Amino acid sequence: MVVGAAGYVGGELLRLLDRHPHVTGWTATSRSQAGKRVGDIHPALARSDATFQGLSHAEAARAGDVVFLALEHGESSRIVPELVEAGAPLLIDLAADFRIADPAMHAAFYGAHPAPALAARFTYGLADVEPSRLRGATLIAAPGCFATAAQLALWPLAHAGLRAEPALFAVTGSSGSGAHPKPTTHHPARAHNLFAYSVLSHRHEGEVLQSWRRWTGRADAAARLMTHSGPFVRGIHLTLHARLAEPLAGDAGALVRAAFAGRPFVRVTGQPPELTHVVGTNDALVHAAATPDGRELQLMVVIDNLVKGAGGQAIQAMNLALGLDETAGLTGLGTFPC
Amino acid sequence: MVVGAAGYVGGELLRLLDRHPHVTGWTATSRSQAGKRVGDIHPALARSDATFQGLSHAEAARAGDVVFLALEHGESSRIVPELVEAGAPLLIDLAADFRIADPAMHAAFYGAHPAPALAARFTYGLADVEPSRLRGATLIAAPGCFATAAQLALWPLAHAGLRAEPALFAVTGSSGSGAHPKPTTHHPARAHNLFAYSVLSHRHEGEVLQSWRRWTGRADAAARLMTHSGPFVRGIHLTLHARLAEPLAGDAGALVRAAFAGRPFVRVTGQPPELTHVVGTNDALVHAAATPDGRELQLMVVIDNLVKGAGGQAIQAMNLALGLDETAGLTGLGTFPC
Amino acid sequence: MVVGAAGYVGGELLRLLDRHPHVTGWTATSRSQAGKRVGDIHPALARSDATFQGLSHAEAARAGDVVFLALEHGESSRIVPELVEAGAPLLIDLAADFRIADPAMHAAFYGAHPAPALAARFTYGLADVEPSRLRGATLIAAPGCFATAAQLALWPLAHAGLRAEPALFAVTGSSGSGAHPKPTTHHPARAHNLFAYSVLSHRHEGEVLQSWRRWTGRADAAARLMTHSGPFVRGIHLTLHARLAEPLAGDAGALVRAAFAGRPFVRVTGQPPELTHVVGTNDALVHAAATPDGRELQLMVVIDNLVKGAGGQAIQAMNLALGLDETAGLTGLGTFPC
Amino acid sequence: MVVGAAGYVGGELLRLLDRHPHVTGWTATSRSQAGKRVGDIHPALARSDATFQGLSHAEAARAGDVVFLALEHGESSRIVPELVEAGAPLLIDLAADFRIADPAMHAAFYGAHPAPALAARFTYGLADVEPSRLRGATLIAAPGCFATAAQLALWPLAHAGLRAEPALFAVTGSSGSGAHPKPTTHHPARAHNLFAYSVLSHRHEGEVLQSWRRWTGRADAAARLMTHSGPFVRGIHLTLHARLAEPLAGDAGALVRAAFAGRPFVRVTGQPPELTHVVGTNDALVHAAATPDGRELQLMVVIDNLVKGAGGQAIQAMNLALGLDETAGLTGLGTFPC
Repeated sequence: MVVGAAGYVGGELLRLLDRHPHVTGWTATSRSQAGKRVGDIHPALARSDATFQGLSHAEAARAGDVVFLALEHGESSRIVPELVEAGAPLLIDLAADFRIADPAMHAAFYGAHPAPALAARFTYGLADVEPSRLRGATLIAAPGCFATAAQLALWPLAHAGLRAEPALFAVTGSSGSGAHPKPTTHHPARAHNLFAYSVLSHRHEGEVLQSWRRWTGRADAAARLMTHSGPFVRGIHLTLHARLAEPLAGDAGALVRAAFAGRPFVRVTGQPPELTHVVGTNDALVHAAATPDGRELQLMVVIDNLVKGAGGQAIQAMNLALGLDETAGLTGLGTFPC
Repeated sequence: MVVGAAGYVGGELLRLLDRHPHVTGWTATSRSQAGKRVGDIHPALARSDATFQGLSHAEAARAGDVVFLALEHGESSRIVPELVEAGAPLLIDLAADFRIADPAMHAAFYGAHPAPALAARFTYGLADVEPSRLRGATLIAAPGCFATAAQLALWPLAHAGLRAEPALFAVTGSSGSGAHPKPTTHHPARAHNLFAYSVLSHRHEGEVLQSWRRWTGRADAAARLMTHSGPFVRGIHLTLHARLAEPLAGDAGALVRAAFAGRPFVRVTGQPPELTHVVGTNDALVHAAATPDGRELQLMVVIDNLVKGAGGQAIQAMNLALGLDETAGLTGLGTFPC
Repeated sequence: MVVGAAGYVGGELLRLLDRHPHVTGWTATSRSQAGKRVGDIHPALARSDATFQGLSHAEAARAGDVVFLALEHGESSRIVPELVEAGAPLLIDLAADFRIADPAMHAAFYGAHPAPALAARFTYGLADVEPSRLRGATLIAAPGCFATAAQLALWPLAHAGLRAEPALFAVTGSSGSGAHPKPTTHHPARAHNLFAYSVLSHRHEGEVLQSWRRWTGRADAAARLMTHSGPFVRGIHLTLHARLAEPLAGDAGALVRAAFAGRPFVRVTGQPPELTHVVGTNDALVHAAATPDGRELQLMVVIDNLVKGAGGQAIQAMNLALGLDETAGLTGLGTFPC
Repeated sequence: MVVGAAGYVGGELLRLLDRHPHVTGWTATSRSQAGKRVGDIHPALARSDATFQGLSHAEAARAGDVVFLALEHGESSRIVPELVEAGAPLLIDLAADFRIADPAMHAAFYGAHPAPALAARFTYGLADVEPSRLRGATLIAAPGCFATAAQLALWPLAHAGLRAEPALFAVTGSSGSGAHPKPTTHHPARAHNLFAYSVLSHRHEGEVLQSWRRWTGRADAAARLMTHSGPFVRGIHLTLHARLAEPLAGDAGALVRAAFAGRPFVRVTGQPPELTHVVGTNDALVHAAATPDGRELQLMVVIDNLVKGAGGQAIQAMNLALGLDETAGLTGLGTFPC
C-alpha cells in the first residue's frame, strides 16, 4: 500500500515493490489521479493494469501489511494518527514529518510539531548505518535524500571517533524537485545549470545534526550541508571536507571500510565514485582520501536520490523491520550507461 | 520598442538590439513584469539598467521607429489595428497572427482571422529567401521557427523547379516552448527525451505551404512537416527527404548553392551540419545529397530557433526594411563549444 | 557465454543474463580486458565477482549452451566457422556479419561476404515480428539497432499490404557509438547537438530492405532510412512518413494493433511515444496517425538501442529458440524518470 | 597572434579578438592544423577566411603586437625564452608554466621549473582582483580556470582580513578537458555524471595558495580546492565554505561588494548565482551569506571557464597592459537561455 503514489517517490516505491520477491501485491492511492492507470503516470509500470485508488485513510491502513506514505511535507502528520489508530502493522513515512524526535530541533527547522508524542515513537530509518534499530520497528521515518548522503559521509568519522566540523557539498538532480514543473526545473533554465539553494538553511540539516550529535555524543557537534541543483535527473553527489582535530592514523580507505563492514549496499571504491554508477540502484558508493599529514579528509558519496534516498531505503527498512533478507528486491537494478 | 518583451523571443530581440550598431536605444514593455529590471529577467542583458515599461499601445507606437511585437498568438491581432492607427513607422510581428495572407488558409490552421484586411497588408518576412520583398516594408510578419527551417529546406527545390512532395522531419529545443514551465519542459521528463507532437497537424504548415505553393506555382503542392521535441535548449535541426518526379541533373550541393547565392546568413556545408554550430547565431547551415540515380534528395538545415527562427530574422527584416546593411548587428554571435 | 563482452552491447547482455531466471551462470570473454573484474568495466554488474576470460574460440563454444558474439563488424565472420565446428548449441551474433542472407545485397552494403554458405544458414532474429522463425533456431543474427526500429515501423504497412516508399527519420543516442571515445561522442561537441550521418548510405538499410522486400513480395520495394545522432545516451526515436498508393481504410491505430497483436514487448500508445519511457527496457512503443483522407501515414517507434536494439532482442531470440517463456528475464527493467 | 590556436582556449581567444574594437587583425598558428581554415575548426569563426599558420617562434614573436600562448602545459616554457629574445612586445601565456613565481612552490606542484629566472619576471594576471599590477606589464601569466574561481571566492575574505581555512568545492564543465576526446569526456559516460578528481592534489592549488598567502600575509595560510567534473559543457560553479576565526561583523553581501567595488566584470548578486547566466561571458557572479552568529560564511562564484577562466581574462589583461579600456571587446557576449 503506497499512499500518495502519483509522485516520483511513490512511483519509485511501486517500481520496487512490483519486483520484490516477497511482496504479493500492492495498492496505490492518489487523490489527484484516482481512477487513472498507474502505468500512464509511471512509465516504469506500464505493464501493470492497476489504477490509483481513492481510499480513506482507515481503508488504507487495513489494505495492506505495510503502508508507505509518499506525501508532501506536513500531510503525513495529519493522517498518521488515524492510520496508527486503525492498526497499520508497519507504517513507513517518507516525508520529513517524523524524522526529528526532539521537539525543539524539529521546531527549529519545521515549526512546532503537530504530534510530538507520535514523533517520539518513530524509528529513524537509516538502514545502511543502523540496521539493528529497524528490526521489528512498526513506525519508521525514512531519511531525506540529501540527509542520507550526508549521514553516509559523516558516519565513518563518527565511527572512528574523529573530531571535526565538516563541510558537506551536495548536488542533486532535478527529480529531487518532484513531478510538478517549477521555474527551477524548466528545461531551458536547468539543462546546463548549477546553482546553490537553501543557503546555510537546508531543512535536512536537522536530521543530519540529530544523528551526528547522537553518534558523536557531543550536543554541539557541527556540520554544514550545502545543497546545489545540477543539470542531471537522478542522483546526489556529495563531497565532505574535514579538517581533523587529531591527525588521522592510517588509511582513509580503511576508515570507510571499517564503518561499513558487512553492509550490503555500501561499496567503498578505490577512486572517486561516479554518480551514474548508482543511478537506478539502492547502492551507495563511498571513497575517502586524506592528506599525507592526516589533517584533512575528503570523502565522496554518490546515491540515487529516489532509490537510496527515498523508495529503496524505505523498502530496505521494510525488509529489516519484517525480518526479511535485507537485500530482497533491491539488487539487479543498475543500468549503464544511462 | 519591443512589446511583450519578458519572454524568450522578447529577450532575444533585446539582446540583439542592444548590440546593433544602428540602434540607439530600445524600450521594453511587459504587463507582467512592468517595473522590474530587464536584466533580472534576461541574464544576457544583466548590465542594462532598463526596466520593463507598462505603456499603452498608442504610447508604444510612438515610442520608437520600430515596434516589435513578441506576444502570444492572438494578442497581436488585438493591438495591431491600434498601433497602425497610431502611426508606427515599422511594425514587425513575431506571432503567427499575420503570417498567412489567404483568409481560407488562415482559417484552416488558426480559425477565422479577426482582421483579414490588415493581414493582406503584411509582408511575410523570410529574409534569407526573399529579401527584396522586405525593402521598404512597414508591416512585417516574421516567420515561425519551424517554418523558417522548413522553407529554407524547400526553397532550393522550388528554385530548381523540382517536383516532389517532401517529408520534413524537424526537432526543436526546449526554448521553443517559451519561458513558462510546462509538463513537456519539466527537466526530469525532458532531459533525455525525444518525442513527436502536433502529429500531421502542426500550425506552421500553413505558412510553409503558402510559400511552397507560391514558389512552385502549384496550388496543390504538398509537403509534410513533422515536428519533434528534443533534449537540448536551442536550435532546430530539420531533415528533408524527397523522391523527385524527375531525376536531379547534377550535384545536390550545387542546387543549394545556387538557391542561396549571395545570401549572407546561409552557408552551404560540405557535410551534414551540426546544430551546435549555429546556436546563438543568425546563421542557417544547409547541406544536401542525392542518390546516384538522382531520384532521391536528402537535405539538412540547422538554425537557432530564437535567433534565425525569431529575433534574429526579425532584425534582419528590419535591416532590409530600413535600407540598412542586412547583416548589421547580426554577426559575431557564435560561441563554441556551448 | 558472451564473447567480446567488454563493450556496451556485451555489458548489456551480461546485465540481462545475470538477472535471467533460467540462466544459471555466464562467462564473459574479452581479449582487451582479460583478467579484469567485469564489475569494474560494467558498473551495472558491480556486485559480480566474475573476471573477463581470454578463452580460445573452441573453448568458448564448449563453455556454455548459448554463445553470444558481441564483436566489431567483421570479427564474427572470422570465428563463427570455428565455433560452429566446435559444436556451439546456440549461437547468436550481434554484429552485422550474418544479417543479410543474399550475397549480392550483402556485398552492396558490406563488400563480399567471407562465408556466404554460412550466412545462408543464419536466421534473422527480429523477435517482435517473426517469433516463429526463431523457435528451434541454432544460428541467429540479431538485427541492428536502427534496423530494429525501422522494421518495427515498416511491419504494420507490410502486414496491411499498404504500398508506399516510406521515409524513416531516426535519431540515436551516443551509446550507439560504443564504449570508445570518438570526436562525435566528445561531450563538449555532442552535449546539445544533433546531426545527420551516413547520409543516403547507412549500412542498416541492407537488412531493412531485405525484410521490407520479403514482406511485401516486391523485389524493388523502397524505403529510406535517415540516421541522426542526438544529445542523449540511450534510445532510438524513429518517425516514418509514407504517402500511400491507396488511401488507408480505417484507423491508423488499428493498423498497428493488428500488426503486433499478442506480441508482448510492443505497446501501441494513444499518443506519440516518449523515448525515455523505454530506456533500459526491451519494449517498443509504437504510435500511428493518418491524415483524414487516409493518404498520409506518420508512425513513431521508440526503443532502447542497447536492449531492444541489441542485448534484449538477442535474449528474446534465445528464449524463443530454446522454447522458454519469450519474456523471461526481460520485464521489470524500466526506470523513470531517468 | 595566437600560438597553439586549434584548441578550445585558442578558439576562444580568436573569437574574442575577432570582435575586439581595438584589434585590427589576428594570426593563428597551429602545428597540427597548419593550412586548414580556422573556421572549420572553430565554428564561432566560420565567417573568417583565415587559415592556421605554421610559423616559427621567432616569426610569431614578430607577427603581432601581442602574442598569446595557448599551448599544453610545459610547451610554453620551451618557447618563451626564444619569443622574449625575439622581442615580443606583450606576451600572455595561458598555460600553467609561469603562474607560480616561487621555485619551491612551483616544484611542489609541477616539478622543477626549467626557466626560474624567467618565471620571476611574469605578472600573474588576475585582472578582476589586481588590475594595477597588469598596467604596463609585458609578460603575463593568465590564471587557470579553477584558480580564477577560487581566488575570486577567497579575495573578499583576504580583503576583509578574515582568518579562515576555507574549503572550496568546484565543478567544471567538459570543455575544461580540452578538444581531444577522453574517457572522462565520452558522452555516454559524462552526460549525466558528476565525480571528483585530483582529490586533495589539484595543481591549481599552487597558484591559489600563492595569492591567498600573499594577500593574507600568512605564509601558512591554508585553503582546500576540491575539483569535480559535471555534466555540462561550459562554466565553473564554486562554493566556498569557511568557519571564521572571528565572527563576521556585518553583512556578507557588503563584504563582497567592498572587495569588488568598481570592478567591471564582477557582479554581486542578491541570490545564489546560476551558472548559465555567465556562459559565454567574461563576467563573474558572486554571492555570499553568513550564519546569524557570523561564524560561518558560504560564498558562491560562477564563471565561464573558457572566457573568464582563460581567453576573456587574458584579453582583459591585455587591455590593462596596453592601457585600453578594460572592458573593450568583452561585453555583449551573453546568450540566454543556452
